[in-house]
Amino acid sequence: MTVDKNDMGVFVSDPNTGYDVVILGSGSAGYACALRAAQLDLTVALIEKDKLGGTCLHTGCIPTKALLHAGEVADSARESAQFGVKAELTGIDMAGVNSYKDGVVAKLYKGLSGMINANKAITVIEGTGKLVGPNTIDVDGKQVTGRNIVLATGSYAKSLPGIDVDGKRIVTSEHALKLDALPESAIVLGGGVIGAEFASAWKSLGVDVTIVEALPRLLAAEDADSSKMLERAFRKRGIKFKTGKPFESVKATDTGVSLTIAGGDTLEADLLLVAVGRGPSTSGMGYEEQGVKMDRGFVLTDEYLQTNLPNVYAVGDIVPGVQLAHRGFGHGIFVAEHIAGLNPTPIDEAGIPRVTYTEPEVASVGLNEDKAREKYGDDAIKTYNYNLAGNGKSNILKTQGFVKLVSVKDGPVVGVHMVGSRMGEQIGEGQLIYNWEAFPSDVAQLIHMHPTQNEALGEAHLALAGKPLHAHA
Amino acid sequence: MTVDKNDMGVFVSDPNTGYDVVILGSGSAGYACALRAAQLDLTVALIEKDKLGGTCLHTGCIPTKALLHAGEVADSARESAQFGVKAELTGIDMAGVNSYKDGVVAKLYKGLSGMINANKAITVIEGTGKLVGPNTIDVDGKQVTGRNIVLATGSYAKSLPGIDVDGKRIVTSEHALKLDALPESAIVLGGGVIGAEFASAWKSLGVDVTIVEALPRLLAAEDADSSKMLERAFRKRGIKFKTGKPFESVKATDTGVSLTIAGGDTLEADLLLVAVGRGPSTSGMGYEEQGVKMDRGFVLTDEYLQTNLPNVYAVGDIVPGVQLAHRGFGHGIFVAEHIAGLNPTPIDEAGIPRVTYTEPEVASVGLNEDKAREKYGDDAIKTYNYNLAGNGKSNILKTQGFVKLVSVKDGPVVGVHMVGSRMGEQIGEGQLIYNWEAFPSDVAQLIHMHPTQNEALGEAHLALAGKPLHAHA
Repeated sequence: MTVDKNDMGVFVSDPNTGYDVVILGSGSAGYACALRAAQLDLTVALIEKDKLGGTCLHTGCIPTKALLHAGEVADSARESAQFGVKAELTGIDMAGVNSYKDGVVAKLYKGLSGMINANKAITVIEGTGKLVGPNTIDVDGKQVTGRNIVLATGSYAKSLPGIDVDGKRIVTSEHALKLDALPESAIVLGGGVIGAEFASAWKSLGVDVTIVEALPRLLAAEDADSSKMLERAFRKRGIKFKTGKPFESVKATDTGVSLTIAGGDTLEADLLLVAVGRGPSTSGMGYEEQGVKMDRGFVLTDEYLQTNLPNVYAVGDIVPGVQLAHRGFGHGIFVAEHIAGLNPTPIDEAGIPRVTYTEPEVASVGLNEDKAREKYGDDAIKTYNYNLAGNGKSNILKTQGFVKLVSVKDGPVVGVHMVGSRMGEQIGEGQLIYNWEAFPSDVAQLIHMHPTQNEALGEAHLALAGKPLHAHA
Repeated sequence: MTVDKNDMGVFVSDPNTGYDVVILGSGSAGYACALRAAQLDLTVALIEKDKLGGTCLHTGCIPTKALLHAGEVADSARESAQFGVKAELTGIDMAGVNSYKDGVVAKLYKGLSGMINANKAITVIEGTGKLVGPNTIDVDGKQVTGRNIVLATGSYAKSLPGIDVDGKRIVTSEHALKLDALPESAIVLGGGVIGAEFASAWKSLGVDVTIVEALPRLLAAEDADSSKMLERAFRKRGIKFKTGKPFESVKATDTGVSLTIAGGDTLEADLLLVAVGRGPSTSGMGYEEQGVKMDRGFVLTDEYLQTNLPNVYAVGDIVPGVQLAHRGFGHGIFVAEHIAGLNPTPIDEAGIPRVTYTEPEVASVGLNEDKAREKYGDDAIKTYNYNLAGNGKSNILKTQGFVKLVSVKDGPVVGVHMVGSRMGEQIGEGQLIYNWEAFPSDVAQLIHMHPTQNEALGEAHLALAGKPLHAHA
């Protein structure tokens, strides 16, 4: 049910008769919470100042992956001869790319808003909300009250001091998704997930790309072997990168941008993408004023996602941890079930799967080798790295990479790390293995489908279980 | 260790001092058995008349999937405009396709033969073997003796009475993989896995294809919904098919072939592919003479893959069941472990994953809906069909399909069925779910990676568990 923000009729201000759940923000975490709460017979107010669906759908995951897929199509045409296919890549029609990308977003947006608007238990309230009391959100001057409040205000693309994002020569990911034309050259400041994905997509679409990263490696949160493999692949693709190089200054010039990195080297390009992470959207929303415990802008919660205020929860990107849409889904569902008294099991943050949709893709779930050694001790850890060179389907796709497993000796698999074209799609099996605490032998007894990339997961477990098939022990 | 077949020195004829395991045939089942037996400190003789690796590697799975991938590359170029990429498909360079395909096979062959030849516990014996006693294989006149015999002679492409396969106008899959030039038009007799895959690849490469199938639907062994979805996709792609139409007669003409189907309709094309299944390669190999119990050419075994003769096992395509390479791997490993006294758990045939690598792919594990209803009763079964139209990544790829789950009410998932581009790669997760007897709620509590196709499996389980996210209950 959508409600005009001027229609006072449906707003309820008495906490005893208010909504069961008032959710501030309708991104992945917020709308998942609304849908699950409605299933559990709770009444819901879902407050949104912009569009239902939030960052992921409109300016994040979905349009980025469409751009990456356009890049995949371009790469496929460019490299067609090695498969015996005669095709010529003659150019990129950026208006066409944008219309494809926007079409995907529009279709999913239509589906989502249709589902939410048709849901009688959910009242969508359009407007800018602010926490003004332990049970109350002010929406453009009107009070919405509920037994429970869920803060789900998401995140924004950060910049750094000294960088003047103008949306033209110096842009964030949000602008980068709306370019009418591709630059000939680009500097990507930040070699994390977002920076690496844009670098990958742009290179596929013909842009000359250089990544500048202050940390010693790309995707520094991933297993060191994954970073190394991605860096090797990027080098081969002609994507330049400088790691361990903090930026010093940047300025827009007449024709582009000029960026100086620590040490004094200067890079020039048509465009600078600032991809230094996403900050929590929490300022000016009344959280601090109402006494919500926070840390550097993030909202602190316990394992039940409760803040220090009774019946005030926080979900998604404003809660410290990995900022991923499906983590938001999980948070939203968890909180709805917790409010409904279902006693759900707290979410294991390490059990949330992570994929970087670069070419090649990088995927992981559980702990990387370093963290596993830290947690269990050096002597307690076993690893196996299955090279995709031995995997039939990966040879057919002509991709390189690996499946790396980290396990406790005589114990369960505690980390799955993968690199390779399309390997992100394997993360679901890894997710079950990690979260269900499977031993290598539990997986090894199930011979996987031949010839798939999926088989590489099977082979890695066979080898780790001491019975390698197409591999050495 | 490779041994010249004239070098009598290594052949052992005393059963008490012979090999621990003598394996007749070095295809998927045979070589997997050899490798696992060697790991378990057994001595192995591996007899092969042709090339190590057998059908799958040389004339089956691997080259077929390479052909299909060349088709995928062609399709991608052909359809590039809808993604904003300007590419023109100007033709197929069949010599290039073959060299790509042969290159993949050669590389994997090199890896496999390197691994086997380097294994000191395995003696490779080149030559044609025949079972001549309960412990003895005759190889071109020389006797190889072992404590255990493993029959692993594989399968061959069948034809039908009245069809004169000439390898030119009327071919089997083996010839079809070696064509110097593509036909302009082809009839594919048989709409099972092999026929459907060739039809799909050829259409992608520009051939006008018509499938003729006697059974009422394509991929008749799959869930009826999967067949329906594949048929819809094939129709959309312009792949013609006639189901429920047994063939009546076929003849080669001056310019091609002419095939008459039941009812009298006649089809003409440049080429006829006979894809009516694979028969067991068991004739003339001494099995019947030695008293091995057989049925229509297949070797019968108990659940431990033992034939009626003591210490004589059979593995792979000669054992009734699905003829798949990884089933062969599983058989081979099982028998090696059984011989070594490890007491492995018998293989659940339904738990072996199946993928048809058509565009779109069709994948399944466990029981289809009909079989589940038969086994558990109509009232005991629940199904859910998640349409990929709601899946972000599938929208990005512009593919259609579904994930269909079959579960016992308040019980485990007993069947996973999927259709869609690249969906075959999801079968590993399905395989764990089926074989580990997971309940829908076990999977539903793990929110899957967004946006992946893998997520569709998560959504289907969420819905079946009564808590749909991006779907209706």
